[in-house]
Amino acid sequence: MREIKIGLLGLGVVGSGVYRLLSENGDFMAQKTGSRLTIKKILVRDLGKPRPVSVPDGTLTTRAEEILEDPEIEIVCELMGGIEPAKSYILSALSAGKHVVTANKAVLAEFGPEVFQAAEAADRGLFFEAAVGGGVPIIKTLRESLSANRIQTITAIVNGTCNYILTRMQESGLSFKEALVEAQKLGFAEADPTLDISGMDSAHKLALLATLSYGSFVPAEKVYVEGIEGLEPLDLAFAKEFGFLTKLLAIAREKEGEVEVRVHPTLVPEGHMLSSVRLAYNAFLLKGDFVGEIMLYGLGAGAEPTASAVVADLLDAARLIISGAKPTSILYRETPLDIKPMPRIVSRYFFRFSAVDRPGVLSKISGILGKHGISIASVIQKGRQIGGSVPIVMLTHEAEESAVRKALSEIDKLDVVTAPTKLLRILED
Amino acid sequence: MREIKIGLLGLGVVGSGVYRLLSENGDFMAQKTGSRLTIKKILVRDLGKPRPVSVPDGTLTTRAEEILEDPEIEIVCELMGGIEPAKSYILSALSAGKHVVTANKAVLAEFGPEVFQAAEAADRGLFFEAAVGGGVPIIKTLRESLSANRIQTITAIVNGTCNYILTRMQESGLSFKEALVEAQKLGFAEADPTLDISGMDSAHKLALLATLSYGSFVPAEKVYVEGIEGLEPLDLAFAKEFGFLTKLLAIAREKEGEVEVRVHPTLVPEGHMLSSVRLAYNAFLLKGDFVGEIMLYGLGAGAEPTASAVVADLLDAARLIISGAKPTSILYRETPLDIKPMPRIVSRYFFRFSAVDRPGVLSKISGILGKHGISIASVIQKGRQIGGSVPIVMLTHEAEESAVRKALSEIDKLDVVTAPTKLLRILED
Repeated sequence: MREIKIGLLGLGVVGSGVYRLLSENGDFMAQKTGSRLTIKKILVRDLGKPRPVSVPDGTLTTRAEEILEDPEIEIVCELMGGIEPAKSYILSALSAGKHVVTANKAVLAEFGPEVFQAAEAADRGLFFEAAVGGGVPIIKTLRESLSANRIQTITAIVNGTCNYILTRMQESGLSFKEALVEAQKLGFAEADPTLDISGMDSAHKLALLATLSYGSFVPAEKVYVEGIEGLEPLDLAFAKEFGFLTKLLAIAREKEGEVEVRVHPTLVPEGHMLSSVRLAYNAFLLKGDFVGEIMLYGLGAGAEPTASAVVADLLDAARLIISGAKPTSILYRETPLDIKPMPRIVSRYFFRFSAVDRPGVLSKISGILGKHGISIASVIQKGRQIGGSVPIVMLTHEAEESAVRKALSEIDKLDVVTAPTKLLRILED
Repeated sequence: MREIKIGLLGLGVVGSGVYRLLSENGDFMAQKTGSRLTIKKILVRDLGKPRPVSVPDGTLTTRAEEILEDPEIEIVCELMGGIEPAKSYILSALSAGKHVVTANKAVLAEFGPEVFQAAEAADRGLFFEAAVGGGVPIIKTLRESLSANRIQTITAIVNGTCNYILTRMQESGLSFKEALVEAQKLGFAEADPTLDISGMDSAHKLALLATLSYGSFVPAEKVYVEGIEGLEPLDLAFAKEFGFLTKLLAIAREKEGEVEVRVHPTLVPEGHMLSSVRLAYNAFLLKGDFVGEIMLYGLGAGAEPTASAVVADLLDAARLIISGAKPTSILYRETPLDIKPMPRIVSRYFFRFSAVDRPGVLSKISGILGKHGISIASVIQKGRQIGGSVPIVMLTHEAEESAVRKALSEIDKLDVVTAPTKLLRILED
């Protein structure tokens, strides 16, 4: 039995989950794999803080050097979160010849090239299954199972908080605010939910998935982002009338050498696999040139699912240590990746116009759309009065984003239009 | 660039797909992984047969020794199907020190211990991602991503032919026969569909998944099997009235040290993730003690998805060759596995009784059910005459299979009952 010693950085929710998993299933895993993972030291900020797990005396430390400089420790497992000092510790661990397992999507999405190159230079493994999708093995699937495929599209629900809120708004007609408060009460949303609801968390994760899929670093700031804060139950209800559910999707798509990366609320046809993904679940729909469509689904957060992913990475790192194998490269692409600018993307659209209830309004609006080459697929106008104006809802055929932007800016200047037009994009088939 | 030479056994649908994938994406894979996979020889039965791929002169051979005895060939990729000579070739390749990639679920399900032990004795890798689920990475997910988990349940749609037929019966009211003929026309069912529609193919796949999950060989003949041949559109329609879709499920479940393994038509609640799996798609819903529920979904058959899985295995084998790592064991469990006998399983049930339309019938039937401790959750009796008798449909609360069998055998002997009762099981939450 080969024993492999691990240093844990952080003993918060996920760290405690990892500790508990190794305690409960360690024997079973050792029997299965022939190696035993032992946590030698755990870095914490406060030695006296009460913890959900009981740890042997002398395991906790407040000094990172006790882990980073201990030659017995072969794997450093970073679960502190945040950029610093997590990033410096990851780099130190790699340069000290340790393999690194991390769940830190922020460090990878913002400082990917630096961290990936440090791992490559040190010839050490860098594992981050838990950074995206909690327990769902999306990273390994992209790095290994689909490695013979060119990834054509990734269409994913990567933020459980947003999916929870949208599910509740959709199914029970709650307002965004009511759904958010409920999610916070149940622990599905943070006290400060900005990173989630703004779509930024999804953008970080999408950037990482695109980086893996295309072998070239995709910075999070290149991802076009719209959050869910502006969604109203009315929009979700109209979308439903047309047969769509509204989801915050992270989309990457390669076409003719260019890659689109965008996060925005999207209408998904009912009956589509992604439309069944409810509450705090995540799902990743991938399309490869040989595999066709596959989907992975599961809990994208929580101590236990995340611990499952972290420990799978620890086992992979252990295998690498035992075999002395060379870790695979992440940034393998030789030519730079072209990110398609948002104005050039093509989509079908959902518009909700707010207009005064007067003859000729529809003709004015559709005239402007026509002028910009945007053709209408269907319209609902019901004459319901909302604050003195009526909603007119349209679905379009495929149009270019730039044309749509121009048309809406003209339409929103019409004197019969009473509020900015609401725009949602429709998932491509 | 390290070149790794492969011998292919078989150049049928999947073999040609693998050949084409390596031709089309070989450069891209080499750039990504730093090693190049080259097919050196291909065993075929008939050198002159026209092929969908064009292969360099001298690559095809009818003599297996040219592959099995060639020291340059490091990986043997078996895609012939059938038991013999495939099994002998796999064993010869392993004992000649080659790694083996195979898509042959029949050999693994029937001769697992022999083949797994041969791989272990030879210290060579045995990879079989393509044996279950086509391009869906279910094998790697069980062997690696979930290896820190105890697998509590597997609930899967593993046969695309059956799912296609059931989807068509459900959605368009086709009879079993009409749906089968259509599936055959479209290439989703074989000319002789017995293996698929009897549930045996599903049983083979489930046995393999259970073997991986529990580390002990589960023979296919231990799997309880019912096929879909006896299903009538009427049953699917009644199930739908109660809010269920009917799917052929493969179920493995561990509880208190015993494992259930069974394949049968099962009622799945509408809105459940598995209920959205339509047509020829497969899906694997897994529950682990830490990861919770995760699902993998995709095309379970076809040249291209299967080639994606085979080539992922070739890349894994190549990594093993380059690193000299020890492959992981499959049969790691030390104590034998207890398979729970079918009479002791507990489920909720759907019954369709055929009875004469006469007062007191319902009371007789429910009296017998009550006597056996089976309690009724809901009933539909609509008085529709079908061949002189009316269908009475019931859903039960949880009951033991043995009690259900006894009760139905008594009920079917009643003079008011005109045909054997139809029994379907309901998916547990």
